[in-house]
Amino acid sequence: MATTTRTVTQVCESAQAASRQLARASTEAKNATLRRIAELLRERTDQVLAANAADLEDERAANLTNALRDRLTLTPERVEAMAAGVEEVMRLPDPVGEEIDSATLRSGIEMRKVRVPLGVVAVIYEARPNVTIDCAALCLKSGNAIVLRGSSYAANSNGALAAVVRDALAENGLPAGCVELLSGDRSELTELATAEGLVDLVIPRGGEGLKAALKEVATVPVMYAAAGNCHVYVHADADLDMARRIAFNAKVQRPGVCNAAETLLVHADVADRFLPEILRELSDASVELVGDERARAAADGVPVGEASAEDWDKEYLDLHMAVGVVDSLQDAIDHINRHGTGHSEAIVTSSEEAAREFTESIDAACVYVNASTRFTDGFEFGMGAEIGNSTQKLHARGPIGLRELTTFKYVLRGNGQIRE
Amino acid sequence: MATTTRTVTQVCESAQAASRQLARASTEAKNATLRRIAELLRERTDQVLAANAADLEDERAANLTNALRDRLTLTPERVEAMAAGVEEVMRLPDPVGEEIDSATLRSGIEMRKVRVPLGVVAVIYEARPNVTIDCAALCLKSGNAIVLRGSSYAANSNGALAAVVRDALAENGLPAGCVELLSGDRSELTELATAEGLVDLVIPRGGEGLKAALKEVATVPVMYAAAGNCHVYVHADADLDMARRIAFNAKVQRPGVCNAAETLLVHADVADRFLPEILRELSDASVELVGDERARAAADGVPVGEASAEDWDKEYLDLHMAVGVVDSLQDAIDHINRHGTGHSEAIVTSSEEAAREFTESIDAACVYVNASTRFTDGFEFGMGAEIGNSTQKLHARGPIGLRELTTFKYVLRGNGQIRE
Repeated sequence: MATTTRTVTQVCESAQAASRQLARASTEAKNATLRRIAELLRERTDQVLAANAADLEDERAANLTNALRDRLTLTPERVEAMAAGVEEVMRLPDPVGEEIDSATLRSGIEMRKVRVPLGVVAVIYEARPNVTIDCAALCLKSGNAIVLRGSSYAANSNGALAAVVRDALAENGLPAGCVELLSGDRSELTELATAEGLVDLVIPRGGEGLKAALKEVATVPVMYAAAGNCHVYVHADADLDMARRIAFNAKVQRPGVCNAAETLLVHADVADRFLPEILRELSDASVELVGDERARAAADGVPVGEASAEDWDKEYLDLHMAVGVVDSLQDAIDHINRHGTGHSEAIVTSSEEAAREFTESIDAACVYVNASTRFTDGFEFGMGAEIGNSTQKLHARGPIGLRELTTFKYVLRGNGQIRE
Repeated sequence: MATTTRTVTQVCESAQAASRQLARASTEAKNATLRRIAELLRERTDQVLAANAADLEDERAANLTNALRDRLTLTPERVEAMAAGVEEVMRLPDPVGEEIDSATLRSGIEMRKVRVPLGVVAVIYEARPNVTIDCAALCLKSGNAIVLRGSSYAANSNGALAAVVRDALAENGLPAGCVELLSGDRSELTELATAEGLVDLVIPRGGEGLKAALKEVATVPVMYAAAGNCHVYVHADADLDMARRIAFNAKVQRPGVCNAAETLLVHADVADRFLPEILRELSDASVELVGDERARAAADGVPVGEASAEDWDKEYLDLHMAVGVVDSLQDAIDHINRHGTGHSEAIVTSSEEAAREFTESIDAACVYVNASTRFTDGFEFGMGAEIGNSTQKLHARGPIGLRELTTFKYVLRGNGQIRE
């Protein structure tokens, strides 16, 4: 079969040309395309599953770990979940065109600060084919063309899914170049990350290895998904029942995600009253515990290992928790600002003063008073879907939703003003 | 003299510790410090000038070009201008604590999105000592500690100016570490640009060489000041008198700045009527002109050289201008999106339709209708002072003022909410 292989630059140029048309597409055209993507996903479920089966049967797939194999696998339920997710994005408000600010300048020029798409967003991801659809839907709605660079292990699945999106685009008069799919070659990562003037943002969806590789080479902006070393601090005046529920929830409800708590800090005044029960509950829920000397002394027979210096900096993403006793609110704040990753931090307290001190002093995207850290999430925040969570301070901090996939421009209308 | 030399890391740690105190300082304390800086600058003018004289008399200063020597030189007027600039920053609204958004989440949690300082901002600059004061004032007002890394040529001047700021801080109960001054060693640049976890933002104030050096090594976020290849496009239906005033102003009023126009594009229908007069005016104002074939043919005896392919991409920053004739609004848009740097672009037209087409299609920070590109400026935009101008799309686009030196955090108050 004689196919012409395009270079990464050619693919990005196609995306950029398409992005200029997409940036001005109406909300109606974008929503109709999203609705059609959902329909086509349902209509073509069998084709998508067949493509996925081809990926799973490929000889290279035999080398995958069980976890990776599971991520690569599509089922009728997973395809339906993708379709439902696209419909959810369709129902979100269109961020493009939103007026952020307006003013009449001293020169008499009328200024409007208006939200516009970024342009071309490149998403680099690993085995999960659903990322193809999730990210395409978010970029489409926010008016951005997307260049998808998935794993070559998922090439057939991604190809079938991208075809769904491109067909829906064409049916609605939008250029197919709005969604470009690369083949998964290793060299593409560097080419994408250095495509200045063509790619406006790179979003890596993958592990620490992918992030490190990008940090090494990227010259275009990259939005790194967050690592979350989150803390729950129980102040001396906390409602200890509430503290117990929050600490347990933050650790156990879904330990593998970035907003789960990894460290529990307890004020020395309540350590003896608070720790035995919560440590027992955690231990009963199969949480492996390590602690400092005072936490271990207060454990009342619950097995708590000795925390090493590294434990305070670890994002376990698992049923593990470090437990420490502090002498003051200030010590808790210092500990969190030193060891935290700036993601989500919680205090349990009944004092307004301690709550204010904590929320003002903690340097993190999300600071909670009397609630679980698990609420850091685009859906819970009312932003609809999210493409990840940022612990960066520039541009996007916290959940990355549709608005975070946009920039703005100043539109200035005069009647002949010149600068004196 | 036995001084202990601190490492860059120690300096940044000092700034970070100070930044946590400064982030919570009241507007009154910050304004009192700014007022005192202005007073001390006036009181110590003689000392500052003596320090500056020492820099100018240093044997190394003999190697400086006249332009660099001028930038390094302080005068009583320049010291007064610095003091007045600090007072202007004092009068600007405090961005810290501004509520950007608030909502009651579906969980019942009360969410507030609140503006907070970035933390530690590092400014890397060249010979001009006034940057020491300008940037310190903007960072102080926005609650950020600043690490200043000026040129070693200006070491005495910068030392005297930083001492003014640090004394004013101490008199107002703020830590001196809010303003740290490095010595100007070459190695400091790399150390600052890779101080992850300590430096939140690097701002280079210097030429392309400095920017390129930073791009090479930086792992912390950098906000690059803009290059501006700005255009004025004269549409077929333009008021040609207005077009003439705008084109002349955009090129001539201050040619050495980034919002000055470098290229004039004219619709073919009006080239013969419009070009002779404007080209004559520009030529009389010593503007060296180059043009495409049709522009040269319409020049009516005004000397216009042949434009090379590179001319369309040049930021002259000088009395030079490229002139082109285009067949349509779309051709003008395509030319600008291809050759522009996304800074400031203007159309002169009397048609609402052409204005909308231009403002929606041009991919730039600031898009003007019937006004000079020279208005892109923090002061003209009502933002007060600015620390530069961004052509990036992420975080800050256009003038970088106090707000652009901040980030935000989500503060979330609950009454025991856990995630189900």
